[in-house]
This record gives sequence, structure tokens and C-alpha cells, in this order.
Amino acid sequence: MSRIIDLEVRDIRFPTSLERDGSDAMNPDPDCSAAYVILRTDRPDGLEGHGLTFTIGRGTEVVVAAVVALRPLVVGQPVEAFTGAPGAFWRHLTGDSQLRWLGPEKGVIHLATAAVVNALWDLWAKIERKPLWKLLSGLSPAQVVELVDWRYLSDALTPDEAGGMLERMAPTRAARESEIIASGYPAYTTSVGWLGYSDLKIRHMCQEALAEGWASFKVKVGADLGDDWRRCSVVRAEIGPELALMIDANQRWDVPQAIEWVKALAPCGPLWIEEPTSPDDILGHAAIARALAPLGIGVATGEHCQNRVMFKQLFQAKAISCCQIDPCRLGGVNEVVAVLLLAAKFGVPVCPNAGGVGLCEYAQHESIFDFICVTGSRKGRMIEYVDHLHEHFVDPCVIRRGRYQVPKAPGTSITMKLESLEAHSYPSGEIWKGLRPQEP
Amino acid sequence: MSRIIDLEVRDIRFPTSLERDGSDAMNPDPDCSAAYVILRTDRPDGLEGHGLTFTIGRGTEVVVAAVVALRPLVVGQPVEAFTGAPGAFWRHLTGDSQLRWLGPEKGVIHLATAAVVNALWDLWAKIERKPLWKLLSGLSPAQVVELVDWRYLSDALTPDEAGGMLERMAPTRAARESEIIASGYPAYTTSVGWLGYSDLKIRHMCQEALAEGWASFKVKVGADLGDDWRRCSVVRAEIGPELALMIDANQRWDVPQAIEWVKALAPCGPLWIEEPTSPDDILGHAAIARALAPLGIGVATGEHCQNRVMFKQLFQAKAISCCQIDPCRLGGVNEVVAVLLLAAKFGVPVCPNAGGVGLCEYAQHESIFDFICVTGSRKGRMIEYVDHLHEHFVDPCVIRRGRYQVPKAPGTSITMKLESLEAHSYPSGEIWKGLRPQEP
Repeated sequence: MSRIIDLEVRDIRFPTSLERDGSDAMNPDPDCSAAYVILRTDRPDGLEGHGLTFTIGRGTEVVVAAVVALRPLVVGQPVEAFTGAPGAFWRHLTGDSQLRWLGPEKGVIHLATAAVVNALWDLWAKIERKPLWKLLSGLSPAQVVELVDWRYLSDALTPDEAGGMLERMAPTRAARESEIIASGYPAYTTSVGWLGYSDLKIRHMCQEALAEGWASFKVKVGADLGDDWRRCSVVRAEIGPELALMIDANQRWDVPQAIEWVKALAPCGPLWIEEPTSPDDILGHAAIARALAPLGIGVATGEHCQNRVMFKQLFQAKAISCCQIDPCRLGGVNEVVAVLLLAAKFGVPVCPNAGGVGLCEYAQHESIFDFICVTGSRKGRMIEYVDHLHEHFVDPCVIRRGRYQVPKAPGTSITMKLESLEAHSYPSGEIWKGLRPQEP
Repeated sequence: MSRIIDLEVRDIRFPTSLERDGSDAMNPDPDCSAAYVILRTDRPDGLEGHGLTFTIGRGTEVVVAAVVALRPLVVGQPVEAFTGAPGAFWRHLTGDSQLRWLGPEKGVIHLATAAVVNALWDLWAKIERKPLWKLLSGLSPAQVVELVDWRYLSDALTPDEAGGMLERMAPTRAARESEIIASGYPAYTTSVGWLGYSDLKIRHMCQEALAEGWASFKVKVGADLGDDWRRCSVVRAEIGPELALMIDANQRWDVPQAIEWVKALAPCGPLWIEEPTSPDDILGHAAIARALAPLGIGVATGEHCQNRVMFKQLFQAKAISCCQIDPCRLGGVNEVVAVLLLAAKFGVPVCPNAGGVGLCEYAQHESIFDFICVTGSRKGRMIEYVDHLHEHFVDPCVIRRGRYQVPKAPGTSITMKLESLEAHSYPSGEIWKGLRPQEP
């Protein structure tokens, strides 16, 4: 038996706002950042569990404070308390009666939960010498059912139903594992259509992306309709009528405005509109979905969807045609699996939110698990990809011809290089020296 | 012109878990606590704005960290930046593009926003030498409309509609002000039915409460059906068939279980079931409301309802017959007013959540404003009351014959006595010396 003897948490920030990479209608100047957790055990091999929650600069220190608040629930626990019953341990982490007041299960405390939970899975996967997807795909249906917190889900999906779904897919897992290793998981790129790009830059980036084998493209919209029309038209002209174009408004609109705006962009043939309004507005998304269905335009959301209870309702209300789980906004692997099971029940494809820092690394494992064990399908499914900050990871995700390649190294692919951690520690790291302090 | 020159935030905790006061099915041992904010200005009279967010112990330090993150948005601002356009200032506080990632507008960052926003209102009311309700009731309809952030609300209520509602009530404000000063605002007590109370204790407390003039009583349920039945029956027997009995499950159940459990308690004649399931489950609350309507039992929630977008949907889905705004869970006075306006539009009475520490003090002002300016009605409306920790406030709320008396002192009634702040500072205060550190 080994024991978790330390939990270290670091405030890691990349000064990406200097380049305006990743800017959108609501987030003009993000500094891609992370609350980064390192779990240490008394194992002789010195294996560590690493996990992170993605943030965008200011406020990372608040998530760090929340991780510190969770520390006493983890340090001193046997590793087997988690690996033996990951669902029960998740309840232990999210169920502290005083900390629960801070959410429950949303916002800062849940972002912190994700970093800790994902570090536990990283530790487990490293101990098993398997990449996360392989660890998950080796669990029995009953073990998968156990790792989910079923509270508040039973009106939509029961543990028995989920177990049945998993049982039906179990005999054919091996075939799908071979298939995905051979062919990878589809991705889409968000790099061609950031706000404010010139026609020339968009054309150039589209041509480059097409040459690299990309088949799906996302464009940011919502700040100015004229500019949106221009950029969407240019992308559509470059990629032709067949390939997928998605648009993303980053919560910019009220419900009636969302419907009107997207209708105006309909001739560009978007597959779906992402985050058309408040991420909390389930009924609003449903209204938008109903209004856009006749135009063949779907609705996607999830990047800011706080937990499984919200996703449950998005499914029940037929509000989304694409479910964008976020590996760190949800409470880590356990809750991601809960949403994968719900999505499968309701027949909604999952296209994880990624980008930022580390999200692509996480999302690939979860989608590969979905393919092997839950839905057995890649139809209508793809993982976002942004070619950004991957160089800081020891085992970054690998893209070939617009597809994620199956990761092979043990763990969750999230371990950052020590020199990257040191240089980007905020505010003391080398990178931040000489930069003015971040002010609102 | 005066300027905000400092924002101090304190971690204040009362060791209430030693007595198990306020325990319920989900919160067995709360330590009533607060992130307590003091705004200082360069005014010659030295007036300060005080505000707090209620918490229940561990994790208060995380809310404190979030207040610190908001500090640069406030310190250095002219007081008039807030008093001249409180709605625009609220958007300034909640709209920081990097901090917004931590919510948006939910959980820790929103609890912190509430403490800061409420401190700004306290400062303004003290400057005007008026209690908060009087300051609010002196604003023109246009000023009230301005103080609300209308983003994400227009599919349910537009600023014009809200302005019209306020205009219609404006000519008769003075009459209602006299009326409420004369007769107070109805309250209900949650003190008779905490979990685990013996029959004898419940009988005694009911008799005492009846003698004091109370007409509405709330009982905690959800841990054990037999115990719930026993306590509800005892209360009903004591208070007779006419007076109101409410029950509160504190999120204990899944949707089907909630329906079954409450049906079993129906013979005790509860007016409503509070927090039957996850506070995030709008559709779940709607399903419970539909199932219980034939029994004449309503559904109430709001204590953990994160923002106006969630309340909007609870109204749209006909999920609640009683709206329990929380003065600190919502983003302070501005967002409370937004929800009061939405509730009025949908005809749902507001019965604020109170208790804890400071919530009764806040809630009274907001309900009195609702009566004078928004709905003009106290029908079906009452404010929770728990007789607990009021002695720490300079100007605590006053209850007579089961009714809140209209507060007279300038401000929001939330300024805590200096000796209380000092003694309960965590972990350095006198009260905490000798107590073991709080561990999960």
C-alpha cells in the first residue's frame, strides 16, 4: 500500500495576451494559464500524479487557493482509496459539507476539483504504465459505472442502464482499439478564423490547413456581423461546400439576437453555432436550437458548462446537437465519463472543447475511451485542436492529417517539462521578469 | 468627488458547529462565516462601506482570495463611478475578461462579487444617510432599470417592460412606505424543526414560537423519512391546520425520490418543498412541481441559485412557486433587483433565503423595496428568520410578532461590531484560540 504524502500546486501563466492568440468576442486578451497540481506518494519508484485546470490569467491564484482547501482531503490518503473506488473518492472530494457551499460543483471549487481529480488519474495511469485511455478501456463496465457520481442523474440515466450500454460494447472493445490506433481520432482547427484576421491571412491559413489535411474549421463570431460575414465567406470559399465550418460566439448574445445573427450567417453553411448565449441558459439554447433547426444549423455548448446536471438538462431539453465537454471545467475524468454516458443515452455526439493549455492533451484520452467503450462511433465527432503551447509538455498530443494520434506514454499526457513550470511560474518565473504585472 | 482608497477583506468565522445549530441533511456541521469587506474612501467624514458574503467555514479563505482578485477593479475608482451608474459598475466588476473564466457569474467569484457590491451599496446608503431600502425606493424607475445587467434576460423581460412595471407602481410608493413602516414584513421561523430534535423539544419550541406571534414554520427534512414524518406531524399538531408549514430538503434527493418522499409527507400539509434536488436542475424542479401540484404542494428554491439566468429559467419552466433569492449568492443588490423584477413579471412571490450570518439583515431591505416599488404585495411572501448571531451587528434586524420591523439606520444593516470582527477573525481571533483547527 502506498500513500499520498504531498500535494503541491503551482500558478503557471503564459503571457499569450502579448500576441492576442486565442482572442475572441468575450475574451480579448487571455493569458493561457493553469493551476497545476503535483501529487507525491511514498512509493519507492517516486511516481507523481500531475494534473491541471486551465485558466486565462488573473484569478488563477483563486483556483490555487481552492486546491489548497482540498489538500486535506487528499494528503494522507492511501493511493488505493482512489484506485479501489474512484467514484467514492470523487464523492469524498466534492462532498465536504463546508466546501460544498462554494459551489456546489461549479466555478472555482469545481475547477480546483478537476485539477486534483485529473492528477489522481494521472498517478493511477502511471502506476499501471498505461495511457489514461488504455486504463479506462481496461475497466469493467461495473468499474466504469462505479466511477460516476450518479446523484441527480437518475431521472435521465440510471447506473443499470449505463452498465447495460457498456456491457453491449465490451465484447468488441479490442477491435475498436486496433482501429483507433490505426486511424486516429478526427480533429478540427480553430486557427483559421480568429477575430480581426484579414482576408489574406484567412486565405493563407485555410490553404495551409487544407494542405495539412484538415477537414473541419472553426471561426470566431459575435463582435461585428459584417466582419463575421466576411471571414465566414472567405473560409467557405476556400474550403468549398463539403467540408465543415463551425462558428463560435463565446456567449456574446441574448437569445433573440443569437437567432437573428446566426440566420444572417446561414448562407455560409455553418454546421453549428457554439456558445450562442449564456452557458447557464439551457432553455435559451433550446429555443435557439428550435429556431435554427429548419436551416440545418445545430447548437453546441459545453466549454463553460459547469457540471453533469447542466449537461443532463441540455440533453433533456434537446438544446444541443453537439456536446462540448471540457476536461477541466467538469470535475475531472469521473464527471467527463458521466457526461459521455449521458450523451450516448441521448444520442448526442461529443466534440470536446480543447485548446488553451493542456486541454487537447486531456481531451484525446477521453474521446478515445468514448470510441472504444461507450459509443463505438466517430461519426459527427471531433476534438478541437489549437496548435499552441504543446511544446511545454513531456508527451504532447500528436496530430497527423487533421487527426489526433493515439497517445502511448503512461499517464494523461499532461506532465509539463520542469523548465517550463519553472519559467512560467507566476509571478516569480523567468518569463514574467520584466513584464508589467497583469492589471485588469 | 471622493475616491475609494482601500478595500480590506477579512475571514470571519463563528464556531457554530460546536452547537450543531443550523445543521441540515446536507450540512451537518456549518461554522457560520463570512468574507467581510470594508471599503474606505478619502471622504472627510470617514464613512466606510461594509459588505459580506455568507459562507459556512472551510473555504472562506478562497472567497477572500477572490475578493482580493476583484480589488484592482474597485480601489482607485471615484465613489461616483458606482453611485452615478451602479449597473455599469456591476458590469465592470463582473466583466473582467480573465476573472470571468472562473464563473462566469457563479460560485466563488460571484460570492466575492456579492460582498464587494453590497459594500458599495452600504457606502452609498450611508452617504445618503438612508437605510438601503429607502435609498432604493428613492430611485426613479429609470435608475432602477439602469442598475440591472440585462444581458441574457431579454427573452423573458426587457428593460422597457421592467420600466413600465416600475412606473405603474411609482405614484403609490409613499402610501406603501407608510404601510410597511406601520406593519412590518412577514417572516417565518426555521428554528422549530432542525434535524434530530426530540418531540418534546419541537413541541416546546412551537409553543414558544406561537406565543411570540409566529405564523409560518419551516422544518428540515431529507435524512430519514420516519424522522421527517414524526417532526412534521408534531409541528402540524402544535400549529393547527391553518398556519403555514414548509419543508426543506437541502438538495438531498434525485427527482423521482423527491416526488415520492414529499408525497409521503403530504398529509402534514406542507406549503412547499424547498431545495428538493440539485439547485442546478431547472427541469428537475419543474418535474417535481408538476407532480406535486395536484397535492397543493409548491416547490421553492434559490439559496444556491447562482444567478439571474438560472432564476429566469426557473420562472420560464414554471419550476417554482416561491423564489428564494439569496442576498449573497446572487451578485449583490443589483442582481437581486433583477430577480425581483423577473419574479414580478412571472407572478412568483419572493421569499428570501436568510439565516446564517447577516442574511436576515440584507433580506429585509430587499423585500421592503419589492413591496414599495416592484410588486406592492406581501401576499404569499415572507422572509426567513433564524434567531442567531444578530448580536454581532451594530444595527441588527428587529422582529416583532413574527414580522421584520423596518430598519431605520443608514446603510445595509450589515456593519459588524469591531469587537466581533476582531474576536472571530480566523484563525487569529480570540474565539479560535484553543479550538482545534477546522479539519474536514
